[in-house]
Amino acid sequence: MTPAPRYGPPDASLAPRYTGVRTFARCPHVTDPEGADVALVGVPFDTATSYRPGARFGPEAIRSGSTLLRPYHAAQDVDVFASQSVIDFGDLAITPGNAERTAGQIADGLAPLVEAGVTPIALGGDHSIVLGELRAHAARHGPVALVLLDAHADTWDEYYGERYFHGTPFRRAVEEGLLLPERSLLAGMRGPLYGLEDLDATREMGFEVLTGDELSGLSPSDYSARVRARVGGTPAYFSFDIDVIDPAFAPGTGTPEVAGLTPREALAFVRSLAGMRFVGFDVVEVSPPYDDSAQTTAMLAANVAYEFLALTALESQP
Amino acid sequence: MTPAPRYGPPDASLAPRYTGVRTFARCPHVTDPEGADVALVGVPFDTATSYRPGARFGPEAIRSGSTLLRPYHAAQDVDVFASQSVIDFGDLAITPGNAERTAGQIADGLAPLVEAGVTPIALGGDHSIVLGELRAHAARHGPVALVLLDAHADTWDEYYGERYFHGTPFRRAVEEGLLLPERSLLAGMRGPLYGLEDLDATREMGFEVLTGDELSGLSPSDYSARVRARVGGTPAYFSFDIDVIDPAFAPGTGTPEVAGLTPREALAFVRSLAGMRFVGFDVVEVSPPYDDSAQTTAMLAANVAYEFLALTALESQP
Amino acid sequence: MTPAPRYGPPDASLAPRYTGVRTFARCPHVTDPEGADVALVGVPFDTATSYRPGARFGPEAIRSGSTLLRPYHAAQDVDVFASQSVIDFGDLAITPGNAERTAGQIADGLAPLVEAGVTPIALGGDHSIVLGELRAHAARHGPVALVLLDAHADTWDEYYGERYFHGTPFRRAVEEGLLLPERSLLAGMRGPLYGLEDLDATREMGFEVLTGDELSGLSPSDYSARVRARVGGTPAYFSFDIDVIDPAFAPGTGTPEVAGLTPREALAFVRSLAGMRFVGFDVVEVSPPYDDSAQTTAMLAANVAYEFLALTALESQP
Amino acid sequence: MTPAPRYGPPDASLAPRYTGVRTFARCPHVTDPEGADVALVGVPFDTATSYRPGARFGPEAIRSGSTLLRPYHAAQDVDVFASQSVIDFGDLAITPGNAERTAGQIADGLAPLVEAGVTPIALGGDHSIVLGELRAHAARHGPVALVLLDAHADTWDEYYGERYFHGTPFRRAVEEGLLLPERSLLAGMRGPLYGLEDLDATREMGFEVLTGDELSGLSPSDYSARVRARVGGTPAYFSFDIDVIDPAFAPGTGTPEVAGLTPREALAFVRSLAGMRFVGFDVVEVSPPYDDSAQTTAMLAANVAYEFLALTALESQP
Amino acid sequence: MTPAPRYGPPDASLAPRYTGVRTFARCPHVTDPEGADVALVGVPFDTATSYRPGARFGPEAIRSGSTLLRPYHAAQDVDVFASQSVIDFGDLAITPGNAERTAGQIADGLAPLVEAGVTPIALGGDHSIVLGELRAHAARHGPVALVLLDAHADTWDEYYGERYFHGTPFRRAVEEGLLLPERSLLAGMRGPLYGLEDLDATREMGFEVLTGDELSGLSPSDYSARVRARVGGTPAYFSFDIDVIDPAFAPGTGTPEVAGLTPREALAFVRSLAGMRFVGFDVVEVSPPYDDSAQTTAMLAANVAYEFLALTALESQP
Amino acid sequence: MTPAPRYGPPDASLAPRYTGVRTFARCPHVTDPEGADVALVGVPFDTATSYRPGARFGPEAIRSGSTLLRPYHAAQDVDVFASQSVIDFGDLAITPGNAERTAGQIADGLAPLVEAGVTPIALGGDHSIVLGELRAHAARHGPVALVLLDAHADTWDEYYGERYFHGTPFRRAVEEGLLLPERSLLAGMRGPLYGLEDLDATREMGFEVLTGDELSGLSPSDYSARVRARVGGTPAYFSFDIDVIDPAFAPGTGTPEVAGLTPREALAFVRSLAGMRFVGFDVVEVSPPYDDSAQTTAMLAANVAYEFLALTALESQP
Repeated sequence: MTPAPRYGPPDASLAPRYTGVRTFARCPHVTDPEGADVALVGVPFDTATSYRPGARFGPEAIRSGSTLLRPYHAAQDVDVFASQSVIDFGDLAITPGNAERTAGQIADGLAPLVEAGVTPIALGGDHSIVLGELRAHAARHGPVALVLLDAHADTWDEYYGERYFHGTPFRRAVEEGLLLPERSLLAGMRGPLYGLEDLDATREMGFEVLTGDELSGLSPSDYSARVRARVGGTPAYFSFDIDVIDPAFAPGTGTPEVAGLTPREALAFVRSLAGMRFVGFDVVEVSPPYDDSAQTTAMLAANVAYEFLALTALESQP
Repeated sequence: MTPAPRYGPPDASLAPRYTGVRTFARCPHVTDPEGADVALVGVPFDTATSYRPGARFGPEAIRSGSTLLRPYHAAQDVDVFASQSVIDFGDLAITPGNAERTAGQIADGLAPLVEAGVTPIALGGDHSIVLGELRAHAARHGPVALVLLDAHADTWDEYYGERYFHGTPFRRAVEEGLLLPERSLLAGMRGPLYGLEDLDATREMGFEVLTGDELSGLSPSDYSARVRARVGGTPAYFSFDIDVIDPAFAPGTGTPEVAGLTPREALAFVRSLAGMRFVGFDVVEVSPPYDDSAQTTAMLAANVAYEFLALTALESQP
Repeated sequence: MTPAPRYGPPDASLAPRYTGVRTFARCPHVTDPEGADVALVGVPFDTATSYRPGARFGPEAIRSGSTLLRPYHAAQDVDVFASQSVIDFGDLAITPGNAERTAGQIADGLAPLVEAGVTPIALGGDHSIVLGELRAHAARHGPVALVLLDAHADTWDEYYGERYFHGTPFRRAVEEGLLLPERSLLAGMRGPLYGLEDLDATREMGFEVLTGDELSGLSPSDYSARVRARVGGTPAYFSFDIDVIDPAFAPGTGTPEVAGLTPREALAFVRSLAGMRFVGFDVVEVSPPYDDSAQTTAMLAANVAYEFLALTALESQP
Repeated sequence: MTPAPRYGPPDASLAPRYTGVRTFARCPHVTDPEGADVALVGVPFDTATSYRPGARFGPEAIRSGSTLLRPYHAAQDVDVFASQSVIDFGDLAITPGNAERTAGQIADGLAPLVEAGVTPIALGGDHSIVLGELRAHAARHGPVALVLLDAHADTWDEYYGERYFHGTPFRRAVEEGLLLPERSLLAGMRGPLYGLEDLDATREMGFEVLTGDELSGLSPSDYSARVRARVGGTPAYFSFDIDVIDPAFAPGTGTPEVAGLTPREALAFVRSLAGMRFVGFDVVEVSPPYDDSAQTTAMLAANVAYEFLALTALESQP
Repeated sequence: MTPAPRYGPPDASLAPRYTGVRTFARCPHVTDPEGADVALVGVPFDTATSYRPGARFGPEAIRSGSTLLRPYHAAQDVDVFASQSVIDFGDLAITPGNAERTAGQIADGLAPLVEAGVTPIALGGDHSIVLGELRAHAARHGPVALVLLDAHADTWDEYYGERYFHGTPFRRAVEEGLLLPERSLLAGMRGPLYGLEDLDATREMGFEVLTGDELSGLSPSDYSARVRARVGGTPAYFSFDIDVIDPAFAPGTGTPEVAGLTPREALAFVRSLAGMRFVGFDVVEVSPPYDDSAQTTAMLAANVAYEFLALTALESQP
Repeated sequence: MTPAPRYGPPDASLAPRYTGVRTFARCPHVTDPEGADVALVGVPFDTATSYRPGARFGPEAIRSGSTLLRPYHAAQDVDVFASQSVIDFGDLAITPGNAERTAGQIADGLAPLVEAGVTPIALGGDHSIVLGELRAHAARHGPVALVLLDAHADTWDEYYGERYFHGTPFRRAVEEGLLLPERSLLAGMRGPLYGLEDLDATREMGFEVLTGDELSGLSPSDYSARVRARVGGTPAYFSFDIDVIDPAFAPGTGTPEVAGLTPREALAFVRSLAGMRFVGFDVVEVSPPYDDSAQTTAMLAANVAYEFLALTALESQP
């Protein structure tokens, strides 16, 4: 018989789930990677936002929105806490007002987890934080494949002279040799652009791009096949920008675009990747001051992280 | 020529619909069942809520959200007030802080209506109220078939030692002999569970369960066929938990789960049951403090009750 | 080489889009039609509202919600500012408390634009404003075809004795000879009615009516074919009432009806009309006090106006 | 022993105060003046608003905000329901979009109450409704004295050609011979004006005006003395515009002005008039769409009406 | 030199205060009383609420609202973390739906702290929780003196047959011999009552009662003198119901009453008690679903707790 | 006879004040200083915020909140647009994510105004923007006296290594020789501090500091005397951080502190300085995402700017 994992949520029969200090899914707040398989990690940074700020409060809100999560994921038929040890690592150190320094802090902050073989699931924070994350993963795995669900490709070069911004991280990551564009699939892009060249430039960098319209036309299994063919055997990283979802379901975000995916579509896409192994994950761009009073966006983001936990749990099952 | 029903909304050409004391669809507030065919009944109780409270204000909000309802239901081609007499019965007595006593009060409060042959449509309130409702109906009709749309099966045994809770009413109802599980269809269940056994235990009680994913795959006529086959000739009760709907469309509820039905889907399922006869109905778990400023949830719940009125109207047509 | 249009948004590389006085899509506020091809025009009027007021603040909110719009419309493959000169004309004079006088003011206010050959895109305001708009267009083009997306047909005769109301403009327009009902297609009607005769009366006036259920069953190309066949070669006017959209996506409106279109559906319908020429457009019934804190409705309305700009841009390309 | 009044709230020991159809302070909804001493009357009209509309929902919100009111007014040492019979008369007929016709409807609607000797307390609605109210009172009592607490004097002549507007009712009332300016005291005026002449013109009409700064400098007994000296033995009418209160305490109003009275100050002013007899009262300009989620403004307005009930109760005590 | 306390917030120069898992004032979450002087303790219970529920989320919100607290209390000239060791003990076990059982759980949960000599500051939760708190304190200190700031005296006997409710705890406490009414001062009572007997009955139980009007007339030093004279040498308990504050400053509460204290007044009253020693404290009735989007109520409650920390710090200074 | 000023708001009798593109108080948007006396200038920057961001939307919100402003300031007896020419200069260029570069951009952006003798009133933006403002003013006038109303002294040295932050501008300004601390008065400081040294360090820099408690104890004339004595004949700059106001009146701000000034107090302090001449003004730290739905904070900030206009108007009267 498999021993129970070292860390996980408390027995919910002892107290209502809304009691206690808010950690992700009520998992213990542990700052030592030893004995953990997966770590939720907050990155409360939003200096690099081009429109609506507030994502610095994203980790707090996602933790709050994770209160109702229970262990058994029915659609994937897996108990996400049964075969893996899950901790809430707390938040990484960041420097408000300085995206470049923060990227370094994020890489440094994740390094102990990555080195210890713990899979981090980052809770953003604006999308600029992915650069630091990719540095940490590439330091261990070499350049990785990117699987991105996002309304924007985030591959611009700069923003008013600022090179470390939430619209630029994947270009920086390519420049730094952290990503393999030819193994990466970016999907969900929609909304007005500066010009036709916006997507062309992304494709010229080597990325495959599926617009939101193209993505909506795919079944989950189609999407899954596209991702698996693209990634191949490369270590892969999954980044989920909440703005890939329609603003009705995710109003609390920094640069909303109308006419996005529904949660049913998006969660089905994520679930379709069962069996793939990812070195890390994030869910970003949750801006609580723009969320509704029911915390709809934060609860959805918590469920996205829960889907990630299901993917790692499926991998970790004996 | 059929005489006009005794009770119904006033002529809307006399005053804008937003004028007047708020009763359901502007129907008269009448506390004597005599002369009524259908009665809207508020049950402002939320002690039995496991996460977000507030459903005690559900009846007030649903009444407010019913202001715009007009008589003619185009999709069902029926004037809901032309052939049936409809009253707002007001709210039942309840005891805040005591779900068990309240169940008794609800049964007592509904008895005069049920005995007079008036079809009650209850406006919740949390889902614990359905136990009292089923007691009233079973007292007259014997055990009934349950048609449930809900994100949760609500068949647990207890909650921190409390046996009368909003997650337990259907188990209590079976124990009390109020329900025929083998004639009941529970549909829409989704979200994380405590374990695989959650749904299994429900099925072992004799209920048929359709998960949200299964339900989404059905056409309205498929669903209708499933319900009719299951219920057969048994007197049936319809319970609609607003959390079967996606939180974007129904944020004001106690235990939201992401990725639910759309209103278009759910209303089509309800409409598909035209011609069936139900002994009673409810729409529950509307929590106004979590609704948006446009009262989206309350308006939707008012429309669910309006769909119920269309079902009873179709039955009462000459 | 084509010279650049005279008016359009500033170069976004000079300042973040959220800076500056709020005009539509950051286009210059110009009150002289000379040199303009398309003009955004606010009509801040809501006296004629039958339920929730607030649309007087619609133009302000839509301008605010247009901040993020960028020039290139990827789905239509067109830069909306490259071949046409676009201005924000400001708001028309209106008289709060007097819908009849306001209709005249709107017609007078638009006349200089229409006479100068500028295509106006009106930002409402409640739907009563369309009467004044149609007067201006008919004065130049003769009676026009109406393409309407709306939850309501707005063809009633009066409202408590008031003949100039947001539920009556298209009847007034027919009476005034501004519209050709036999060339017009009204689509999206849903929700409870006063009686079967509501839609029948509209059809008897000569309009073609597609209910929301019928519309949802059409593909964009089906819809496009229906519209083109109906309109033929008649000068056409496009009116988009935001309440054709489901309240989850557009809570900020005056008379919401549950179970509406999604933005993806609605925008696809608009896009399907590429190649048609419209003499004018409006997007109406945006009521900011009922919008959510993320301004979801206003951003959607701004994107509807952007779709209109794409239609005119496609027409104006060399 | 005095018999109990015919109408009043139910025994609160039978059901929590938040149960039941929402009438003012849970008093019965009665439309026959017979047997009533005081009647709460809703006037859901906001066509005449110059800035933020929404006051048409004021009566609904004030009724909702009155739920917690209990019988005994400790500061005035009076049970407001012990010696007087209080009903909720419902809402008066009004015509949205037509302030002039509505003024007539209000006068007609109040006439049966006034003629029967019932003291009406009107729940607005924008301030234009006071014209109709004053017509009803003057028809019985002759011209009355006005005691006004308001941020604005509402004595302009017209507004964009509209003579029936919420900034003009007291000028209309003087013109119609309904008011005795020389017996009236207007207090609380503050905020930017069009010019020095604004207040001068009001004074030239014969009104006494106390600015907000002057009013704040008065003790309740000073204020009381000023009012009593001014009114003398003339039948008096009390009008309370909620915008006399600071927006922090009353955000839900149509034309807020910063730096107003606190509720403690305002309620003390009202209480200071104990012993005076008023022929009628109103509390106006409550605009629920701008209220906060705790309904702070509506609850305050309900308490203002409760203060009026205390004044009439003190008069009716044996 | 005094050694630094064992527990307290981290050095704020290492990370912005908004980072990290939310504990009170960023103090460590510690569940062992050893080495602590003061413990913040959440009690997320709201079953016993008579009007607006939601206080179960009070502890979460107060922790979130405590983020900005810094060590040095300028008005009291004390560093609240310099001479005392402060922990966040997390939340006590409670049973939703059962106030009587919960009172026992609270007493049991606090016992280890009280026995270890740790001063608890409870974060409510509705006011019913104070019964369990007083049991824990009386078990160690014998019956205590109560210093209460509250809009309501909370000394009723029952509520619809429920004896454990948020309006009854102090009667229960007297019955159980936990309180010395003759050593207790209840201040701030205001709002409509059921009858004159409400306050009389409280006084007959032996309590001294200062109404809100009386309290507002006292200077802080007057209040302090009254409290000190009343309490004498008896071990005292301080309970702060947030509804003693005006709803404009504290909208997020269960039974708001208009015209309350300002925070400046209330904090000055608390500060005036410097030098007194309290065996425990609480701040209760914070209902986050009714708070505003700036969390004004929760931030205020966090500052009330901070005032308590200053009182204990002044006592613990060498 | 004095000619009318070149720029000012349009005649309000031509259109309701809520019509038109939103500029401050409806003044024209003019980018050429020629012919202007006073210029409102937006600075939409919030990178330098330590807690709640959002002030980048401050200028938009303040413009929106200024809609109701009228020309005549009754308390100061001055028409603010009669003797001075007022423009809305639009927003300055800024660089999100880079406070240091932005300080330079602000100085450059204001230079043309300052050099042309136009008095700028800046609408923030977080308080870091004052550094750039002071550079512009000192470049023309030499080091200036600072009159500050603020909950915080903003004289720290750095924040996580960032020297250009919203808590540091006045230290930077002293270092750069832009301010004369010995001629400056900082008032309103309150809330928890890092240590006693926080205020001491400010005083050691030469500033006079009045805490909030001290300030509340002053009458407006006392305050005026203190300011005039301190400033003497030095050119003075007035900075108003909206957080000096209590959060109930100004919830929409970045670092709220409980128990602040009321607007009545604060506006009286500003008005007391009539006759003084200021080289410039700002009102900062308005964060719209945290404001209430009535825009209470933004309206208050607009009124603060209006008070500044009254001060300049009093100076410019013939």
